[in-house]
Amino acid sequence: MATLIHKPAIVQRLRKITRKRKHARQHVGAAPGTIFETPDASETNIRAQLYGTASGGAKEIFELGQIKQLQQQQADGSILWVDIQGLANVTTIISIAQHFNLHPLVIEDVVNVGQRPKAEVHDNDYVVVLMREPCAGPPFDSEQLAIVFGPGFVLTFQERHGDIFNPVRQRLSAGSRRLRDIGAAYLGYSLIDAVIDGYFPILEGYGDLTEAMEQKAIEEPAPDMITEIHVLKRELLEIRRALWSQREALNVLLRDDTALISDPLKIYFRDCADHSFQLLDLVESYREVSQGLVDLHLSSVSNRMSEIMKVLTVLATIFIPMTFIAG
Amino acid sequence: MATLIHKPAIVQRLRKITRKRKHARQHVGAAPGTIFETPDASETNIRAQLYGTASGGAKEIFELGQIKQLQQQQADGSILWVDIQGLANVTTIISIAQHFNLHPLVIEDVVNVGQRPKAEVHDNDYVVVLMREPCAGPPFDSEQLAIVFGPGFVLTFQERHGDIFNPVRQRLSAGSRRLRDIGAAYLGYSLIDAVIDGYFPILEGYGDLTEAMEQKAIEEPAPDMITEIHVLKRELLEIRRALWSQREALNVLLRDDTALISDPLKIYFRDCADHSFQLLDLVESYREVSQGLVDLHLSSVSNRMSEIMKVLTVLATIFIPMTFIAG
Amino acid sequence: MATLIHKPAIVQRLRKITRKRKHARQHVGAAPGTIFETPDASETNIRAQLYGTASGGAKEIFELGQIKQLQQQQADGSILWVDIQGLANVTTIISIAQHFNLHPLVIEDVVNVGQRPKAEVHDNDYVVVLMREPCAGPPFDSEQLAIVFGPGFVLTFQERHGDIFNPVRQRLSAGSRRLRDIGAAYLGYSLIDAVIDGYFPILEGYGDLTEAMEQKAIEEPAPDMITEIHVLKRELLEIRRALWSQREALNVLLRDDTALISDPLKIYFRDCADHSFQLLDLVESYREVSQGLVDLHLSSVSNRMSEIMKVLTVLATIFIPMTFIAG
Amino acid sequence: MATLIHKPAIVQRLRKITRKRKHARQHVGAAPGTIFETPDASETNIRAQLYGTASGGAKEIFELGQIKQLQQQQADGSILWVDIQGLANVTTIISIAQHFNLHPLVIEDVVNVGQRPKAEVHDNDYVVVLMREPCAGPPFDSEQLAIVFGPGFVLTFQERHGDIFNPVRQRLSAGSRRLRDIGAAYLGYSLIDAVIDGYFPILEGYGDLTEAMEQKAIEEPAPDMITEIHVLKRELLEIRRALWSQREALNVLLRDDTALISDPLKIYFRDCADHSFQLLDLVESYREVSQGLVDLHLSSVSNRMSEIMKVLTVLATIFIPMTFIAG
Amino acid sequence: MATLIHKPAIVQRLRKITRKRKHARQHVGAAPGTIFETPDASETNIRAQLYGTASGGAKEIFELGQIKQLQQQQADGSILWVDIQGLANVTTIISIAQHFNLHPLVIEDVVNVGQRPKAEVHDNDYVVVLMREPCAGPPFDSEQLAIVFGPGFVLTFQERHGDIFNPVRQRLSAGSRRLRDIGAAYLGYSLIDAVIDGYFPILEGYGDLTEAMEQKAIEEPAPDMITEIHVLKRELLEIRRALWSQREALNVLLRDDTALISDPLKIYFRDCADHSFQLLDLVESYREVSQGLVDLHLSSVSNRMSEIMKVLTVLATIFIPMTFIAG
Repeated sequence: MATLIHKPAIVQRLRKITRKRKHARQHVGAAPGTIFETPDASETNIRAQLYGTASGGAKEIFELGQIKQLQQQQADGSILWVDIQGLANVTTIISIAQHFNLHPLVIEDVVNVGQRPKAEVHDNDYVVVLMREPCAGPPFDSEQLAIVFGPGFVLTFQERHGDIFNPVRQRLSAGSRRLRDIGAAYLGYSLIDAVIDGYFPILEGYGDLTEAMEQKAIEEPAPDMITEIHVLKRELLEIRRALWSQREALNVLLRDDTALISDPLKIYFRDCADHSFQLLDLVESYREVSQGLVDLHLSSVSNRMSEIMKVLTVLATIFIPMTFIAG
Repeated sequence: MATLIHKPAIVQRLRKITRKRKHARQHVGAAPGTIFETPDASETNIRAQLYGTASGGAKEIFELGQIKQLQQQQADGSILWVDIQGLANVTTIISIAQHFNLHPLVIEDVVNVGQRPKAEVHDNDYVVVLMREPCAGPPFDSEQLAIVFGPGFVLTFQERHGDIFNPVRQRLSAGSRRLRDIGAAYLGYSLIDAVIDGYFPILEGYGDLTEAMEQKAIEEPAPDMITEIHVLKRELLEIRRALWSQREALNVLLRDDTALISDPLKIYFRDCADHSFQLLDLVESYREVSQGLVDLHLSSVSNRMSEIMKVLTVLATIFIPMTFIAG
Repeated sequence: MATLIHKPAIVQRLRKITRKRKHARQHVGAAPGTIFETPDASETNIRAQLYGTASGGAKEIFELGQIKQLQQQQADGSILWVDIQGLANVTTIISIAQHFNLHPLVIEDVVNVGQRPKAEVHDNDYVVVLMREPCAGPPFDSEQLAIVFGPGFVLTFQERHGDIFNPVRQRLSAGSRRLRDIGAAYLGYSLIDAVIDGYFPILEGYGDLTEAMEQKAIEEPAPDMITEIHVLKRELLEIRRALWSQREALNVLLRDDTALISDPLKIYFRDCADHSFQLLDLVESYREVSQGLVDLHLSSVSNRMSEIMKVLTVLATIFIPMTFIAG
Repeated sequence: MATLIHKPAIVQRLRKITRKRKHARQHVGAAPGTIFETPDASETNIRAQLYGTASGGAKEIFELGQIKQLQQQQADGSILWVDIQGLANVTTIISIAQHFNLHPLVIEDVVNVGQRPKAEVHDNDYVVVLMREPCAGPPFDSEQLAIVFGPGFVLTFQERHGDIFNPVRQRLSAGSRRLRDIGAAYLGYSLIDAVIDGYFPILEGYGDLTEAMEQKAIEEPAPDMITEIHVLKRELLEIRRALWSQREALNVLLRDDTALISDPLKIYFRDCADHSFQLLDLVESYREVSQGLVDLHLSSVSNRMSEIMKVLTVLATIFIPMTFIAG
Repeated sequence: MATLIHKPAIVQRLRKITRKRKHARQHVGAAPGTIFETPDASETNIRAQLYGTASGGAKEIFELGQIKQLQQQQADGSILWVDIQGLANVTTIISIAQHFNLHPLVIEDVVNVGQRPKAEVHDNDYVVVLMREPCAGPPFDSEQLAIVFGPGFVLTFQERHGDIFNPVRQRLSAGSRRLRDIGAAYLGYSLIDAVIDGYFPILEGYGDLTEAMEQKAIEEPAPDMITEIHVLKRELLEIRRALWSQREALNVLLRDDTALISDPLKIYFRDCADHSFQLLDLVESYREVSQGLVDLHLSSVSNRMSEIMKVLTVLATIFIPMTFIAG
C-alpha cells in the first residue's frame, strides 16, 4: 500500500510539477524548427536493430555511423528500429532525423522536450506520436517520448535512459511472429501500447493513495491534511493533462487516412485508444474523489471546532453560575 | 426501505470500490492479446443450449468437448447459446473463443476483467458488447460480462456465477416465438436488455437511500454524516461510470452498420439505449442531490455551532454582570 | 404570490419527488414489450371523436367497441381522436393500440408510466411523443402523457384524468378551420403545444417562490432555510429533467424526415421547440439563482455567529477587567 | 464611476428581474398564433418612411392608413421602413403585419413580449430577428424588439418608445450612400448592429461596478455585501441569457441560405456575430469575477470572526489568571 | 523567481485589467466601419521594407508616401512588409489600409483596439489575424496586434511601439532562405509564431508565482492572502480569454480554404495552433491550481480560528474551576 506523503516533502513535490512544465518554454524569437540543447539533458545512447522476415533478426548495438550501413543489409520486409535515449547530443540526433527526412518542425518537437502529446500523420511518409512516458508515481514522474514510424523503420526518441521498451525488445528477440510479420507500424503500435500500459500501475498507486487518504480523513482527521489533498489534486491534474492529449493523439491516428496504418492494424490502435480512455476515466474519478476529500476535510475542521466550543460551553454552564452562587 | 450505512462499515465499502478498479490493471509489457488467469476467479461452468425453429429447442447442459458435437446438430435458423460463468479455466475459455474466431484482443478483453464497457462491431462476423452486470446495491456491486453474437451463435462470459439471465432462459424454454424467430442478434439484445433492466431496482434502492439521508440531514443532523454522503457519492460515481460507457456502447451498435443487426431489430436496441439514458439521468440527479446534501450538512454544522455559542453568550450575559455586581 | 414552504411539509415533498421516479422501474427479466398493470392506476375513460371537413364534426363520447364503428363513418380528410385517460384497464388499452398497429415496445412505453420523454418517428405510419404533462406546481406534480398521431388518427394516453386538452377540444367544437383542415399532425401539434404551454404558469410560480426566498434570505434569514432551498433545488431539477428531454424529443421530430409532418407544419413544431427552449432557459436561471441562495444563506449563518461572538467579546471586555479590578 | 447599490433597493431590483420574465408567460390553452393585449403596454406610435435611390429619401411621419398609399409611391430600389413603438394597439399592429404577409406565429411572437431572442428565415419572403433591446444598466433593463426585413421593406416592433435607432435614422436622413444602395437587408443589419452596440456601455458600467465591489471587498468588507454580490450575479445572468440567444440568432442568419442576405452582406452579419461573441465573453468573465467575490467575502467574514475571537482570547489570557491570582 | 504581490498594489492591478477591457467599447450609433481616434494612442511610426528573391533584401525605413514608390520596385516574388506601430495617426493608417483594399469593417477592427482575437479569410485577397500581443507579465499586460497578409504584402498594426518582431526582422536581414522563398504567408506565419512564443515566458512567470503562493499558503498562511489569489485568478482569466480566441482564430485559418495558405504552409500553421493549445492547457491548469488555493486558504483560516479557540478553552478549563475552588 502507498504511504502517505509528509509535509516537509510537499513543497518539494509541488516544485517538481512546475519544473516539468518549464521544459515547454519556447525560445522566444527563434526561427521555427530551431533546436536548442537542453541544459541538463541525459547523454545520448543510440541502439539500432534490424528485424526481418528473411534474415531472422540480427541483434546488435550500433553507433550512428553504422545505421546507413545497417540499412544496406535491410532485406525486403525487415524493420529497422533506431532507439535514441537521452537528448544531449543534438547534432547526431538531427543528422539521424534528417536522414529519415523528418520535417524540421517535427525534429524541433522531438528534441525540445516538454511538448504536449500529439500525433501527426505526414501522408504516407511517416507518423509521429509524441507521448509522456510514465517513469514513476506517486509522486508522478514522466519524460517525453517521440515514436516515429514509416515504411521499414521505427525511430524512438526518449528524454532519459529507461527500460519501458524492454519487454517489447525481448518479444522481438524471442522471435514473436506477429511483431515481425506485420511490419513497422505494428512495432510502432507495440511501443505505444507499452507506454499506455505503463500508466496502469501508477494509477493503481494513486487509487491506493486516495483510499488511504479517505481512511485517514474519516478515522483520524488532521488539521493540515488539506495540503496533502492539494498535492494529490495537482498530480492527478498533471496525469490527466498527459492522458487527455494522448487519447486525442490516438484518435487522430484512427481518423486520418494513411497507408501506413492498414485496416487490420486499426483494431490494435483502437484497443490502445480504449485503454487510454479507461485510464482517463480512472483519473477523472480520482479527481472527483479528491475534491470530495476537501468537503470531508472542511467538515471535520468545523466539527473539531464545534467540539472545542462544546467543552468550553459545558464548562462555563457548570462553573459560572456556581462561582456566582459561591460568590 | 434501505437502511442507513454505519461508520465502521464505511472504510470497508470505500476499499471495495477501489479494489474493483484494480482488476483493470494491465500486465505491463505483456504482448497485446496476452491472457492472465485472475488469481481469485470463480470456477468455470459452461452451459450450451441449442434453440431452433425446426427442432423446437433441445434443452441440455454440455461440457466444452460437446459444443462442436452440438453444432453439427445445428439446423438452419437455430441458435447456439454458450454461457460461460466464472473465468478460472482460462485455457478452455480461450479454446472456445478461438473456435468462434474471436480476435485475440477481444479474447483478452473478455477474460481480463475490469474493462470499460464498450461495443465493437467486427464487420458481419460478430458483435462484442462488454458490460458491467449489476449484482447488488446499495452498496453497489457488479461483475464484468461479455456478450458476443454472430450468425447462429451467442456467447456470454460472466465473471461470476449468477442468474441474471434466468428469465430469458425461461422464456426460451417456454418457447417464446419472438426469441426463436428473429435469431442470434435478438437473443443478444434480450440479454443486454436483461442487464440494463437489472440496474432499475438498484437505482431505486439508491433513491430510497438518498431520501433517507435527506430526511436524516433535515430532522436529526449528525456531525459525521459527511462520511456517509462521501460514500454515497463515490458509489453513485461508480454506477455512473458503468452506465455512461454502456450508453456509449449501445450508440456504437446503433451507428455502426452491420448485417448482424437488421433494421427491425434496431428499434429494440434503440429501446435499450433509451433505458440506458433514463438510468444515467436518474444517477445524475441523485449525484446532484447528494452534492446538495453536502450543503445541507455544512449548514447544519454551522447552525449547531451557532447554537452552542448562543448558549454560552446568554449564560455570560446573565452571570458575568451579576458576578461583578455581587462581587 | 406563492407562500413559503414550512418545515413539516418538506420531508413529505422530497418523498413525493422520489416516488414519482419509482414508476420508471422496469420489471426485471420480463420480456421486452411486456405490460404490467400499475397498482394504483386511475380508472380508464375512453373518449373518441370524429372531426371532419365534410361532416362538420360529430361530437360524441364512445366506449371501446364503438371505435371501429366510428372509423367506418370516417370520411376522407376527417380525423379520429381517441383520448384515453387513466391506465387501469390495460387489456382495453392494448387492444386499441394494436388496432392502430403500434409496435409492442411503443405500447409498453405508453402504458408503463415513468418513461423519459422522447419522440419516435415510425416511418410514415405514426409518430409517438412521450411527455410529462404538468399538473400543478409549486410543488411540481406531473403525469405521463403519450401522443400518437398517424394518417387520419390521433391517440392520447394520459396517466390520470385531467383537462389540459379542454381548450383544444373547445376550439375543435367551435369549428376552428385550421385545426380541421391541416389534419391529424396539426391536431397532434396542438396537443403538444398545450402541454408545453402548461409549464409557463408553473414556472411563473417558481419565479415567485424564488423571489420570496431571496427576499426572506436578505431580510429575515432563518437558520433552517437551507432545507427550503434544498427542496426548491430538487423540484427545479425534476422540472429540468422533464423539459430537457422534451426539447430533445421535439428536435427529433424536426430532424427526422416523415411524410406525416409536412413542411408548412414544421414551422409549428419549431415554434414548440422554441417555447420548450425558453422554459429550459428559465429553469436553468432559477437553478443558478437557487444555488446563489445557498451562498446567501451560508454567509448569513456566519454573520449571525459573528454577531453573537461580538456580543460575548464586548461583554467580556467590559466586565472581566472590572471584575478583576473590583476583585 | 458607478455607485454601489444599497440594501433597501436590492429586493426592489430582484423583483424587477423576475417581473420581466413573467411577460414570457403564455396564455394556457389559447390557439397558436393568438395575440393578447399586454395590460400595461405603451401606446402605439407608427412612423413610416420611404428611402430610395431615385427620389432621394422623403422624410415624413405617417399613420397606419397611409402606409399602403406610401407603398404606391415606392420606386424600384427604394426601401419602406415602418417603425412601431409601443404595443397597446394590437389590432392596428396585426393589420400591418398581415399586410406584409407575416406568419401568424411570427405575429404572435412580435406582439407577445418576453420571447427568447431568435432569428427565423422564412425562405426568400422575410427574415425575423427577435432581440432584447438594452434600455439601461446597471441595473440592467431591456425591452423586446422585433426586426423584420424582406424585399423592399423593414418593419420594427419595439415594446416601448425609445431612441436607439435615432443614429441610424440620422445617417439615413443625411443620405448615407451605403445605407440606401444595398437595400432593406443592409438597413436590417444596421438596426441589429445598433442594438448590439447598445450593450457595450452597459457592460462597461458593470465592469465599473465589479471593480468597485472588488475594491470594497478588499478594503472595507461589510457583513451584508453578499446581497449586493447576489444582485450583481442575477443581473449578469439576465444579460447573459439575452446575449447568448442573440448570438445564436445571428448564427442562424449566417448559416441559413436566403436570397435576402447576399454574400457581400454576410460579412456585415458576421461582424455583428463577432461583437455579440465579444459581449458574451465579457459577461462570462464578469460572472466568473463575481463568483470570486463570494470567496473574497466568505473569507473576510471568517477573518473578522477570527479577529473577534483573538481579542476575546487575549483578554481572557490576561485577566482570568490574574483574577485567579488576585482571588 | 517571481516576487509575491503586495496588498497596496492589488486594487491598482485589478483596475488595470478592467481598463483594458474598456477599449472594447463601441461608439453607440456610429455607422459600421466608423473609425475613432483612441484618446491616448501612441504616435504612429511606419516602417516599410522590401524583401525579395532577386534584389536580395533592401533594408530601409520609409514614410507613408514612399510605400507606393517602394511597390514599383517590387520584383516578382519579393515581399513588402509595412509595419505600423502606434495608432494615433488614424488618417494615414486608413489611407494605407485602403491602398491595400482592406474591407471597411476590417479597417475598423484594426484601428479600434480592444477587439476579440479572430481570423478572417477574405477569399484569395488577404487574411486578417487579430491577436493580443503579450507585453509583460505577471502582471499580464498586452496590446492589440493585427496581421494582414495577401499576395506579395504583409501589414502589421501594433497598438504600441514594441520589439516583439525584432528576431524575425533580424532573420530576414540575415537572409534566411526559408523566410524569403515561401512568400508573404510564410512571413505572416513567422509573425504569428513570434506572438504565440511570447506567451511562454509569461506563463512561466505565472507558474513561478503560483508555486510561490502555494508555498506561502502551506508554510505561512496569511489572513488576507485571498486577495492575492483573487488577482491571480483574474489575470489568468484574462490570459485565457486571449489564448482561447487566438486558438479559435488559428483553427479558422486551418479550416478555411484559401490559395494564400498553400498545403506545405499548413503544417506551419498547425504547429502554431498546437503551441496555442499547449499554452491554453497550461493556463487551464494554473486556473485549477489557483482555485485549489482558495480551499487551502479557507481551510487555514478555519484552522487558525480552531487554534485560538483551543487556547481559550484550555485556559478556561484550568482557571475557571480553580477560581471557583479558590473562591
